[in-house]
Amino acid sequence: MKLFSYFRSSAAWRVRIALAWKGIDHGQVPVHLLRDGGQQRSESYLRVNPQGLVPALEEGGKVLAQSIAILEYLEETHPQLPLLPADPWRRAEVRAMALAIACDIHPLNNLRVLNYLKGPLGQDAVAVSVWYRHWIAEGLAPLEELARLHGDGKKYLYGNSVTLADVCLVPQVYNARRFGCDLAPYPTLVAVDEYLGTLPAFAAARPEAQPDAE
Amino acid sequence: MKLFSYFRSSAAWRVRIALAWKGIDHGQVPVHLLRDGGQQRSESYLRVNPQGLVPALEEGGKVLAQSIAILEYLEETHPQLPLLPADPWRRAEVRAMALAIACDIHPLNNLRVLNYLKGPLGQDAVAVSVWYRHWIAEGLAPLEELARLHGDGKKYLYGNSVTLADVCLVPQVYNARRFGCDLAPYPTLVAVDEYLGTLPAFAAARPEAQPDAE
Repeated sequence: MKLFSYFRSSAAWRVRIALAWKGIDHGQVPVHLLRDGGQQRSESYLRVNPQGLVPALEEGGKVLAQSIAILEYLEETHPQLPLLPADPWRRAEVRAMALAIACDIHPLNNLRVLNYLKGPLGQDAVAVSVWYRHWIAEGLAPLEELARLHGDGKKYLYGNSVTLADVCLVPQVYNARRFGCDLAPYPTLVAVDEYLGTLPAFAAARPEAQPDAE
Repeated sequence: MKLFSYFRSSAAWRVRIALAWKGIDHGQVPVHLLRDGGQQRSESYLRVNPQGLVPALEEGGKVLAQSIAILEYLEETHPQLPLLPADPWRRAEVRAMALAIACDIHPLNNLRVLNYLKGPLGQDAVAVSVWYRHWIAEGLAPLEELARLHGDGKKYLYGNSVTLADVCLVPQVYNARRFGCDLAPYPTLVAVDEYLGTLPAFAAARPEAQPDAE
């Protein structure tokens, strides 16, 4: 198994957490999202993943894209230390929390979108930063509410163990901090993020622990 | 089972297709995304879904948000006429195609984002339309490639039966047309969309067939 990754990509980071959590042996291929005008747009990478996005997972000569699809695949093929509960409704609640990040926050704030705001739409740095913080607040406020409803308020977003919701939370909180977002309104998310950071699998997946870290 | 829906919402439409496809008996509660400043932002709806988005599925007094989480739930609890293959890798490939729409096209072009571009960012109608078409093209081009690789080129995006990828395709193609996007570069997607439109479950889920259609 080989993961195409960029140390700072939130979506690649999610998959790194799951691989580490489940102890799945794998290699890593760095794809630099800024160098050479974005290596994810290179002809060679587009042959790997026509979407031109990281992560991508290669196994047996075949390639899989989309972090959430990869996470579900790892969960189905490596059920040890499950990241989803057993009950269908509870599984769905966890997925809904993960997707509240993966569909409704992250896609609006990733590199290609910020570049489009700056380039074609001619927005200055202040407007881009206001945009970023707006979607963080729109997304994290209801997630804080769901975490209070479903989690233990301290260690996990949902129930009493690590789930896909936690896997999606950590990279999003890191990026919110990087862009100077105020996290004071989300004490539960901050507490859970802090606890998760103490777990070895989460520590191993952090950007600064990657081979391509800068 | 009760679905909170808006006739034109792509995400609600996906769930309507799956419910019709699997023949799951349910009621519908309309949430008008434009009326009253957006009923999805009303206090009463925010108690249903704190994210303030449709769809939401109510069952046994509990509510589930996020269309993809709902689709996975329906698939797990109503396995008849499956929308995912049996093999884990193939399931993941289908999910990746569905998520290429649900994560990388739709969230950038939905109502709240277009409103933010027009309002706070002060973009005119032309710029908003260029934005819309840009993300459609960014997303549909690789999806066309994946459809040629994985589908039959005529009826289905993946393999030889309806999957979650098809469920996500139809509302996206409809909305692309609504915004005047050129679909000529995606003949496979157009052919598949046309075929799917002939299936009763897909016809029943269309906006104009909904109780709240205008």
